Amino acid sequence: MAVIRSSVESANDGRTEFPLSNLPFGVFRHPNASARIGVAIGDQILDLQAAAKDGLLTGLDEDITVSCEQDSLNALMSLGREGSRALRARLMEFLSEQSARSRVEPLLVPQTRVKMLLPVRVGDYTDFYASIYHATNVGRLFRPDNPLLPNYKYVPIGYHGRASSIVIAGVEIRRPCGQTKAPDATAPSLGPTRALDYELEVGFFVGRGNARGAPILISEAESHIFGMCLLNDWSARDIQAWEYQPLGPFLAKNFGTTISPWVVTMDALEPFRAPAFARPEGDPNPLPYLSADEDRLRGGIDLKLEVWLSTAKMRAEKAEPMRLSQGNLRDLYWTLAQMLTHHASNGCNLQPGDLLGTGTVSGASRDSLGCLLEITKRGAEPVELPNGETRKFLEDGDEVIFRGYCEREGHARIGFGECRGVVLPARNC
Amino acid sequence: MAVIRSSVESANDGRTEFPLSNLPFGVFRHPNASARIGVAIGDQILDLQAAAKDGLLTGLDEDITVSCEQDSLNALMSLGREGSRALRARLMEFLSEQSARSRVEPLLVPQTRVKMLLPVRVGDYTDFYASIYHATNVGRLFRPDNPLLPNYKYVPIGYHGRASSIVIAGVEIRRPCGQTKAPDATAPSLGPTRALDYELEVGFFVGRGNARGAPILISEAESHIFGMCLLNDWSARDIQAWEYQPLGPFLAKNFGTTISPWVVTMDALEPFRAPAFARPEGDPNPLPYLSADEDRLRGGIDLKLEVWLSTAKMRAEKAEPMRLSQGNLRDLYWTLAQMLTHHASNGCNLQPGDLLGTGTVSGASRDSLGCLLEITKRGAEPVELPNGETRKFLEDGDEVIFRGYCEREGHARIGFGECRGVVLPARNC
Repeated sequence: MAVIRSSVESANDGRTEFPLSNLPFGVFRHPNASARIGVAIGDQILDLQAAAKDGLLTGLDEDITVSCEQDSLNALMSLGREGSRALRARLMEFLSEQSARSRVEPLLVPQTRVKMLLPVRVGDYTDFYASIYHATNVGRLFRPDNPLLPNYKYVPIGYHGRASSIVIAGVEIRRPCGQTKAPDATAPSLGPTRALDYELEVGFFVGRGNARGAPILISEAESHIFGMCLLNDWSARDIQAWEYQPLGPFLAKNFGTTISPWVVTMDALEPFRAPAFARPEGDPNPLPYLSADEDRLRGGIDLKLEVWLSTAKMRAEKAEPMRLSQGNLRDLYWTLAQMLTHHASNGCNLQPGDLLGTGTVSGASRDSLGCLLEITKRGAEPVELPNGETRKFLEDGDEVIFRGYCEREGHARIGFGECRGVVLPARNC
Repeated sequence: MAVIRSSVESANDGRTEFPLSNLPFGVFRHPNASARIGVAIGDQILDLQAAAKDGLLTGLDEDITVSCEQDSLNALMSLGREGSRALRARLMEFLSEQSARSRVEPLLVPQTRVKMLLPVRVGDYTDFYASIYHATNVGRLFRPDNPLLPNYKYVPIGYHGRASSIVIAGVEIRRPCGQTKAPDATAPSLGPTRALDYELEVGFFVGRGNARGAPILISEAESHIFGMCLLNDWSARDIQAWEYQPLGPFLAKNFGTTISPWVVTMDALEPFRAPAFARPEGDPNPLPYLSADEDRLRGGIDLKLEVWLSTAKMRAEKAEPMRLSQGNLRDLYWTLAQMLTHHASNGCNLQPGDLLGTGTVSGASRDSLGCLLEITKRGAEPVELPNGETRKFLEDGDEVIFRGYCEREGHARIGFGECRGVVLPARNC
């Protein structure tokens, strides 16, 4: 397949995360201007509000044009995959016409000049637990005798997260205070968490929703998924261990969740689809409502994921960030379609812009573990950094950086942009 | 204290839930008109948009007037307790002037003529577990050897619920499908829940919020609470039992949550304040961040709560609903202020209109249990209804009705209005 060139030169260099075939959506703000929707192309952003004014969207459904003039992607998401598909097709055509170069240029804004904002007003945020490696590793630490619970291979386990504290990459995360109890203490006490962790996840956004009471068939699930981002589910492990029984994680998680700014559409990910996770022999088949041939054959996505760490000391020494792990979304036991279908199987209504997280993406190998809890075995085996520092968990000043990209012979590499966050010291508890 | 009479006669009859001293806020819609904010007075609603047009609110802060012209209470809630206090004072004065009767009348709408709508756009919904009786009773059924977990007396246990499926009283609730597994089955199966339950709860709304990263002191917690409603946390017990480990309830709860339409302000509840729950000797004191003399002395609310059941057969026989239980909000182990402070203690940002549920309100006595799971001991001891029917859990056509009211010598009785919902049969699973 030939890779089509864009009139935006930086989109053609083979190293960019945003070639013509990606065109992810985001919301940006110029200094002193209002929030606008744009698509990333090379090192630029195509301003969709300006594009609409220029007449570039003429002929598309009015709903689409109107949705491009909002300050969030919710309206565009509500149009379903057809809406973003028609829009991307138009933009792709426009951005590939070398003769349109002079018309393109006034609509571009350099990415370095703007502030990226949350792309979506998230109504509800749900976090899953779809990596069996993660579930097993964490289960072993919290319940050595009973690591993987009997429901895991039947139920795509998930729980509700906090929408209000979702922040865009770059926003600092303050170390939370909370109740913790040492095993030998008689009572808990309040203090800053001593076990702050990241969780490497992928988030996916609901496009068209479903009415309350009306489930979504597994065969139609993907038509309800708009696109994806990277997601850091910051976690305080000591708070979590003390609070999570019997109703699940709460304050250990809801102080902050970071997402990357660009929403990569399912259409852009199309060339990188892969078979769903191959269940080992002896594992049960998914129940019929979670089974579809189509999903089994291409429910996976070959998305490489990396975690990088930059400590304050490393930055002072002008050292490069260190890679802590690399994983792949293909390692998830459950597909996105299965998670979404399960979520709506009781009639729960999903709405455009709702965010679903996959849960920590860990693989089978030691270098593909998606959180420090797993990497350091709850602090028992600290990570050594090149400059001599060690980490059991995150320290103040640490910056965690997630990267994600898809590569395949004959296709331009596409990326997600970075999901970054720096840890600030706790306030007085 | 003398009870002040209103010019709206139905507010003076001693039986109404909405005397002059209540004035709860809600959102209503006349046939073919847009949604408006009103306050309940007797069997009428005072239309606040009309009142603003009439000049009745002149002299109040412009923020208050503007908030009365919205189609939800979020803007009013964001003004904090001062905002609603000033507004209610003005309305109380106006509605007590007998000479203003002719000016009042055009602003009134009979409650029977309108449809009540969700009063608030709920950003995030959190459900607590604040009744130690409920936690112990339920714990005994799910974990006979370990009913009350060691964290209960230290942590106001809570978890995130689903905001999108919150509905207003009167909206029907469809019996959900879900995975369940009988103890002797080798694998789970999908089917309609056979253990549909209600949970009697009180909901409270956040008024002024807090910034992300900035906790709320226990001494200031009540200034962040706008008011309260009744809440039915519909639950599918068989789905819950199979799914809830290790991340808590999910599909067992998120198919629907019903709230009563009127938000009763904390100011209206002032005369009914009571000491917080008296912890039995031997129980630990709350940690300092959850302790305040003020909260201990008046953190409770003497709010009587009732659950009534009306089956389809009872309605066909024109029989009255049957009362299943009566409890009191004073029986909660944790106060509203403690729940709110705990929620924000890690810096989680609460926003105007966020809804917090208390969890099932159960008391110590057999007739004060707030859900069928407890009343029937998970179906082992069915309830007998006057017409010969029995109930282990809810059946299709059952209507569940919650009522709540405060009474105290020298004060007009105030009520919450009803929180009603009928169970519809499941769809094909």
